[in-house]
Amino acid sequence: MHTDLVAALDIGGTKIAGALVDGHGRILLRAQRATPAQEDGDTVMRAVEDVLGELTVSPLWSGARAVGIGSAGPVDASAGTVSPVNVPGWRGYPLVEGVRRATGGLPVELIGDGVAITAAEHWQGAARGHDNALCMVVSTGVGGGLVLNGQLHPGPTGNAGHIGHISVDLDGDACPCGSRGCVERIASGPNIARRALDAGWRPGPDGDTTAAAVGEAARAGDPVAVASFERAAQALAAGIAATATLVEIDIAVIGGGVAKAGEVLFAPLRRALADYATLSFVQRLTVAPALMGTDAGLVGAAAAALTRRNSATAAGV
Amino acid sequence: MHTDLVAALDIGGTKIAGALVDGHGRILLRAQRATPAQEDGDTVMRAVEDVLGELTVSPLWSGARAVGIGSAGPVDASAGTVSPVNVPGWRGYPLVEGVRRATGGLPVELIGDGVAITAAEHWQGAARGHDNALCMVVSTGVGGGLVLNGQLHPGPTGNAGHIGHISVDLDGDACPCGSRGCVERIASGPNIARRALDAGWRPGPDGDTTAAAVGEAARAGDPVAVASFERAAQALAAGIAATATLVEIDIAVIGGGVAKAGEVLFAPLRRALADYATLSFVQRLTVAPALMGTDAGLVGAAAAALTRRNSATAAGV
Repeated sequence: MHTDLVAALDIGGTKIAGALVDGHGRILLRAQRATPAQEDGDTVMRAVEDVLGELTVSPLWSGARAVGIGSAGPVDASAGTVSPVNVPGWRGYPLVEGVRRATGGLPVELIGDGVAITAAEHWQGAARGHDNALCMVVSTGVGGGLVLNGQLHPGPTGNAGHIGHISVDLDGDACPCGSRGCVERIASGPNIARRALDAGWRPGPDGDTTAAAVGEAARAGDPVAVASFERAAQALAAGIAATATLVEIDIAVIGGGVAKAGEVLFAPLRRALADYATLSFVQRLTVAPALMGTDAGLVGAAAAALTRRNSATAAGV
Repeated sequence: MHTDLVAALDIGGTKIAGALVDGHGRILLRAQRATPAQEDGDTVMRAVEDVLGELTVSPLWSGARAVGIGSAGPVDASAGTVSPVNVPGWRGYPLVEGVRRATGGLPVELIGDGVAITAAEHWQGAARGHDNALCMVVSTGVGGGLVLNGQLHPGPTGNAGHIGHISVDLDGDACPCGSRGCVERIASGPNIARRALDAGWRPGPDGDTTAAAVGEAARAGDPVAVASFERAAQALAAGIAATATLVEIDIAVIGGGVAKAGEVLFAPLRRALADYATLSFVQRLTVAPALMGTDAGLVGAAAAALTRRNSATAAGV
């Protein structure tokens, strides 16, 4: 008997993944659909309902006590709505209400995808045992989430930890978000690749111009490729140091495709952190690669639902 | 009968203030000494003991249940030590132990001075009723503190909210803290004055070259003075926006001498915030002048002691 099962949803611009997850973070059942990202909002919702339908028909479903959702942002946990940048049909879309209806009225916990990944790394990954942590995904974009005082800090709307859109260069390049010099504008994969190409780096015979290809060139010693990763590392370090200086964290966990470049990113990142994290109380800060794989979003959404359920139980709700 | 009295200490590089404060934040008794900032550590401690001595001889003292300390930083609440930049005799100095001894073993709560001012503004000032707030002091330096989820967030060492030393210009001017382009390096009073002088502003017949004089010139329309305040406002806005994007705050409260410049600072600050606080969940962010006066440090230290006492009571400790 599983008495502490939750359903989890990981909603992105490419796929909608669902799972039944137990109290140990084990995935007992999965379902998935491609996100019909260019369709109208109700069509996207039907893909979510299809995923949930595969879960609810399982005999395991009777043990499910809550639903956790990690969604591409921005989300609004207080209103129960989502407006994922890459899903134009969802703008202020009432996802929580739709999921509650599709699951027979279960309690639903909504958080941003960066917050979900943070919940997973804190529960079972590189941030385990750390009461104050920043977890980041450096990929096509740069996202993140925070653990403070031993607990996930989603913030009132579920978006806290959006480190990709803090400015570390107030006179810097315009960012699509409307601000300037954002961490993402300097450190994301596409920006690492663009900067290398602008500075004269050229891809190999396969024509691969992704950040992964720039990372390979950097490992082989190409100075332009190395410099592009160093600049990304500097922006990440300034952002991580700012976070530590503001809220006191002792570890920054970094995952996502760009983090797979390994020491090409982490070595200059550690050096740059020493430059920007200067006050006594942030000097002990360490960085570590993420440990959770592609299931991080699902496991983290489950963690949020389990935590909410436990605090509700403790409060006698 | 006062059954909920606490003692409060506000320790800075110039003065050491003490008070007995009741559960409504009323100061019932005061004591003060100049800080012998250039003396050895034990001499500075004796000044603290003299302040406490004036409080302990009062008949009111029997109602005191705890001591709250707000100290110039950095502090280390986990170790109970302080290392105020402007008090060289105190480096890792065991202030908490000394205060506990001088007060007959009362519980002692240590926080940084920016955190203390935040506690005061949240309890009785401009952040009252806000569950997520940043409170700042913009003066000779730039300090601050955070309220998250309705509670003060001092962080494990009592230093959280150090917004003056986050970098908003990663290639910017070197800051005495060792980093570059810190908010304080751009927005503090001395930096506002220096930038105006460098750009050709000249003081009036009184020779006053402080930020207050630059502020008067800005109010009178001097374009160089206006530009220096605008640059400070831009750095403050980038820092405030970063904080909101990281932890979700809905108000930034600004006090200190530079904030007294009024609309010369606040008008460009509101404009710059619109540039840097772009994501949907930070757009509702407002800024407001601080309401607590020179007693903010004492009232905030008292608030921290009262809160600690109440949670300890609730936990049956």
